[in-house]
Amino acid sequence: MIKNLPANTVERLSLYRRILLNLPADEKPFIHSHRLAHLLKINAAHVRRDLMLIDFSGDIHKGYDVRKLIDGIGEAIDCIYIQKVAFVGIGDLGRAVAEYFNHTETRLQVAATFRLEGEAPDFKDVRCYHISRMKEILKKEKIELCVLAVPSDHAQEVSKELVDAGIRGILNFTSAHLKVPSNVYVEQYDMICKLEKLAYFTNKDHCGNNFEK
Amino acid sequence: MIKNLPANTVERLSLYRRILLNLPADEKPFIHSHRLAHLLKINAAHVRRDLMLIDFSGDIHKGYDVRKLIDGIGEAIDCIYIQKVAFVGIGDLGRAVAEYFNHTETRLQVAATFRLEGEAPDFKDVRCYHISRMKEILKKEKIELCVLAVPSDHAQEVSKELVDAGIRGILNFTSAHLKVPSNVYVEQYDMICKLEKLAYFTNKDHCGNNFEK
Repeated sequence: MIKNLPANTVERLSLYRRILLNLPADEKPFIHSHRLAHLLKINAAHVRRDLMLIDFSGDIHKGYDVRKLIDGIGEAIDCIYIQKVAFVGIGDLGRAVAEYFNHTETRLQVAATFRLEGEAPDFKDVRCYHISRMKEILKKEKIELCVLAVPSDHAQEVSKELVDAGIRGILNFTSAHLKVPSNVYVEQYDMICKLEKLAYFTNKDHCGNNFEK
Repeated sequence: MIKNLPANTVERLSLYRRILLNLPADEKPFIHSHRLAHLLKINAAHVRRDLMLIDFSGDIHKGYDVRKLIDGIGEAIDCIYIQKVAFVGIGDLGRAVAEYFNHTETRLQVAATFRLEGEAPDFKDVRCYHISRMKEILKKEKIELCVLAVPSDHAQEVSKELVDAGIRGILNFTSAHLKVPSNVYVEQYDMICKLEKLAYFTNKDHCGNNFEK
């Protein structure tokens, strides 16, 4: 197992795998770095460097063996055991993602979703609980990862409970800057920023259709 | 109005504004580039370069005037009119984001959400419709931006309808690679990749607590 890959490389490796798993049937079983790069709108040198970091090489003529590359990425980034994920604040999103997960090769499993208010139906094997039961369930299910999507003014309070319950990684959908211990990994995702970027590039006053990526 | 800012700069400018709007009261009214950079876990040189691109400068001793910077970013990236956003596939997420929007200084407005199945309550002023009414409502409301979060195997079909209805920007939460005309801007967001990255850095087998960002 390769240690200490850079964060951006890990994210791209995961993305390569998702792209490879979704390739049209006529593109398999081999792919060139520039084709993979094109599908991701990045530079082919990035692809080659990332795959060198996990000691994966291709055939100079045929390119990379797609099936072997999928497996190679798995060996490099996947945990040997299944890691459980909880969705906090948005039950529907959790259920939608749970459904994607059932169709992908990943070692992540959506184990629970929590709602701030009201009742919600369970989804297949994923239970939806009221947030008052969050600490209890997270501990019982040994859940270490979560997606946090509560209203921003509740985010710090909820994240404290998450940390107390043993959560080690938070994908933060709120706009709050979370204060957590240094051994908890926070990945920030601010949807409003993505939407404002989208708005900028679709706005005729700025650059119309000639957007620069 | 400044034209043709790079995509990453637009995204960071939006993020700076969100951070500035959420600053603790004791940090206002001035902020230094290294403090802003620290809050975003990026390099201070990035912050300074981005703000130079929008012709914004600070006081060498006091730093940037927070209120003026918020306004300066707005002048650089905001549209002069309100742009409407629709959420397709996840009603709850749409409503949660709509609530954030109501508390922020943005020229985006969540105007409608669409569900694939069943009925859903409206949220304040945001109606939730069945997806069969999507084209009609998008046209009527002149909605140009949307967040797409339907199951991946429906994504291409739904995105075609979105384009037909006049949508010009799509924030794609599905893992499908959307084929859209070149004048439609697609911003990809694959949650599973973010979660796999999170899983990698919280996995004791990899680098334990010494994660590298």
